[in-house]
Amino acid sequence: MDKDEILFIINSELIDISKIKLLLSGLNIIDIAEILQELDKEKITRIFRVLPKNIASDVFAYMDSDYQQIIIEALTDTEIGEIMSKLFMDDTVDFIEEMPANVVNRVLENLPAEKRKLINQILQYPEDSAGSIMTTEYVHLSENTEVHDAFEIIRKTGLNKETIYTCYVTCDDRLLLGVVSAKDLLLARPAERIGEIMDTAPIFAYTTDDREVTAEQFHKYGLLAMPVVDKEKRLVGIITVDDIVNVIVEENTEDIEKMGALAPSDEPYLKTGIFQLARNRIFWLLALMLSATLTSIIISNYEARMVAIPILMVFIPLLMDTGGNAGSQTSTLIIRGMAVGELFPKDIVRILWKEFRIALLVGLGLGIVNMIWVYVIYGQDLMLSFAVTMTLYSTLIIAKILGSILPIVARCIKIDPAVMAAPMITTIVDALSLIIYFAIAKAILGL
Amino acid sequence: MDKDEILFIINSELIDISKIKLLLSGLNIIDIAEILQELDKEKITRIFRVLPKNIASDVFAYMDSDYQQIIIEALTDTEIGEIMSKLFMDDTVDFIEEMPANVVNRVLENLPAEKRKLINQILQYPEDSAGSIMTTEYVHLSENTEVHDAFEIIRKTGLNKETIYTCYVTCDDRLLLGVVSAKDLLLARPAERIGEIMDTAPIFAYTTDDREVTAEQFHKYGLLAMPVVDKEKRLVGIITVDDIVNVIVEENTEDIEKMGALAPSDEPYLKTGIFQLARNRIFWLLALMLSATLTSIIISNYEARMVAIPILMVFIPLLMDTGGNAGSQTSTLIIRGMAVGELFPKDIVRILWKEFRIALLVGLGLGIVNMIWVYVIYGQDLMLSFAVTMTLYSTLIIAKILGSILPIVARCIKIDPAVMAAPMITTIVDALSLIIYFAIAKAILGL
Repeated sequence: MDKDEILFIINSELIDISKIKLLLSGLNIIDIAEILQELDKEKITRIFRVLPKNIASDVFAYMDSDYQQIIIEALTDTEIGEIMSKLFMDDTVDFIEEMPANVVNRVLENLPAEKRKLINQILQYPEDSAGSIMTTEYVHLSENTEVHDAFEIIRKTGLNKETIYTCYVTCDDRLLLGVVSAKDLLLARPAERIGEIMDTAPIFAYTTDDREVTAEQFHKYGLLAMPVVDKEKRLVGIITVDDIVNVIVEENTEDIEKMGALAPSDEPYLKTGIFQLARNRIFWLLALMLSATLTSIIISNYEARMVAIPILMVFIPLLMDTGGNAGSQTSTLIIRGMAVGELFPKDIVRILWKEFRIALLVGLGLGIVNMIWVYVIYGQDLMLSFAVTMTLYSTLIIAKILGSILPIVARCIKIDPAVMAAPMITTIVDALSLIIYFAIAKAILGL
Repeated sequence: MDKDEILFIINSELIDISKIKLLLSGLNIIDIAEILQELDKEKITRIFRVLPKNIASDVFAYMDSDYQQIIIEALTDTEIGEIMSKLFMDDTVDFIEEMPANVVNRVLENLPAEKRKLINQILQYPEDSAGSIMTTEYVHLSENTEVHDAFEIIRKTGLNKETIYTCYVTCDDRLLLGVVSAKDLLLARPAERIGEIMDTAPIFAYTTDDREVTAEQFHKYGLLAMPVVDKEKRLVGIITVDDIVNVIVEENTEDIEKMGALAPSDEPYLKTGIFQLARNRIFWLLALMLSATLTSIIISNYEARMVAIPILMVFIPLLMDTGGNAGSQTSTLIIRGMAVGELFPKDIVRILWKEFRIALLVGLGLGIVNMIWVYVIYGQDLMLSFAVTMTLYSTLIIAKILGSILPIVARCIKIDPAVMAAPMITTIVDALSLIIYFAIAKAILGL
């Protein structure tokens, strides 16, 4: 029976607890979380309460924060304590971050002091840092443990760990000595000591590292988990690959939003209010509109002359659009290349040389089409066609060069290159293409 | 000693094999692959040959295809056979796909017939399908095996498997019965049978499924590996999360490139020739340039009238840019929302209603600034300010509505919504904003 059918049954019948329990028992916890989120408020809590204890906190972890709040507000203190005791630290912190103060207080009151302290510590790591996405439930072994004992430790403690496939080896003061994978353990002889088989130079992150850089390391080295250490290299937590997949998707969304002239937001679109959405947009629209007034000023300077040759007006949007598109093609490639670690500011000369030659090639193609088109449609005026085509060609070259330089400059002065994308380039190229246009028109047509 | 220092030593000294072996032995295989790729042709092969046999094929798998070709061309038939025998099937297929025919033939000749057959089969799965990224090295258990025997099987066969953390259970005709994780095995009693502890309803993919959809499943369910089955639900391979991270990054790059009016390419920028890069760009530039001629036609229709009120020209670029930016903000959000599975075509009414109200809000903010600015700078002409501002407001609303509708329509008619992004919207909004502008100017200023 699939999710939709189960949802239909829960919604259509009087709640028959034992039947629903049976229906849900065959489902993946993520599917159960999705079903709960489609029920009405009162039913969510009723159904949540009948979930088997061993899966309730997992289901809770996968729910959106507004539904988590509905559930938490309906639970007793004891029930809150039970759910929380089984929730992994990273999920706990995610949850706490989204709750209003009164809920946070009630939740923290029902936690042991030690866990409360840990939560407060993790909440203090900078947003988007490795520390803010790590969890603290890992399997911990010591150097002198023998492999067969390690299995015993995993068996006893593994159920409540985020992963048992990488185990962490530290000395007494929690300094990270190495990691050992479950694969290494399975393939080792039972009497070998952990110290002999562990990897003593694992890839690790500092708590303050940017989570995006950490995600790049996971990608590059194909990792399943990574230890996180503090400044003194003491192990404080681990990050697992499922959370990294989230980070990669979120960071990409953020880049795409910045490139689309939006203030990035991690709220889902349909759940965000229109005032918030409007706020995310108006800053860039206003900034770009005000910088576009530059084009107005340039045109108004040439207004009198343009009245003399009004046909010149006709090509302004076309020249500006084509220049903008050419520039954003280049900036898109450079921004993405830097984001995935394929391009670096040091490559600037190679990039410029490449883009210059591409502009020559592309300009040749577009120029020929443009020359013929303007000549045929607009009164077989060779000089006019030539002036428009020359402007197109020059604009293309400038657009490609700016499209290369601006994202790299942004990176060098520590601005996110993504904000230098299409809209920004377009605005700058617009102004430049007008200046070139009028200069060329003056030279060729005697404007 | 870090990578750069080792690279320096290899490059600066006469090759002292035993010293280099020692230096490399402390490194991660991905770092070794990177070092090899920075050496000159002759040195790559010399150093590759001295790598310990157990890591050589792993290092090979992580190298770019041009370096793989250099190595393969320098190896003897026996050496090729050795490397290939240890290469995972997914890496083998990736490698074969990039090699020229003569190299492919030589490689295939040195493989056992069975493996050759399997490669040919996988090569036939459609590009971007789950089948094309799967590998065939998985741990296979049967229902009646007991847990302690399962460990024996993993110990014996696990070294050559892509993952040992999920094991696959099939019946005699290879039908997938279930999966069992290493965690389940470790936490089970030694005498339990696999059939009792396996998950009988695992998330799986068909060979022909889109790899992007498979990646979404990994993301949603936090998976480490997924079984791939044929039409008859027979197990043919598995996909692991490290390959999925690649898929997610590649698919995002593809979307971003399409949104930047580029034909997507999976070649790294610096390694792509300028003719190829120019070809990836000219199609969209030409198409958008030709559609921008629509703006030329509209303007030339109003040319005579504009000469009468030349100040109108001044605001054309500003109106077009702002409309284009407003439209691309919306299309960016909708395209990304659909890509990450947060928005669906069925949400269109909610989206339109939201965007309409946002346009009203944002238009109010921009409109006020615009009204004041035009009034103050351009001769305190209230009617002119009003005409420009009304155009801005109407363009914003239309841009936001088109920005919502076009990506959704694209999805419905099975075109990738990403191609409906900024450049496309801008071109359409440009033409519409001109039409509105002239209509409003006519009504208010009596153009």
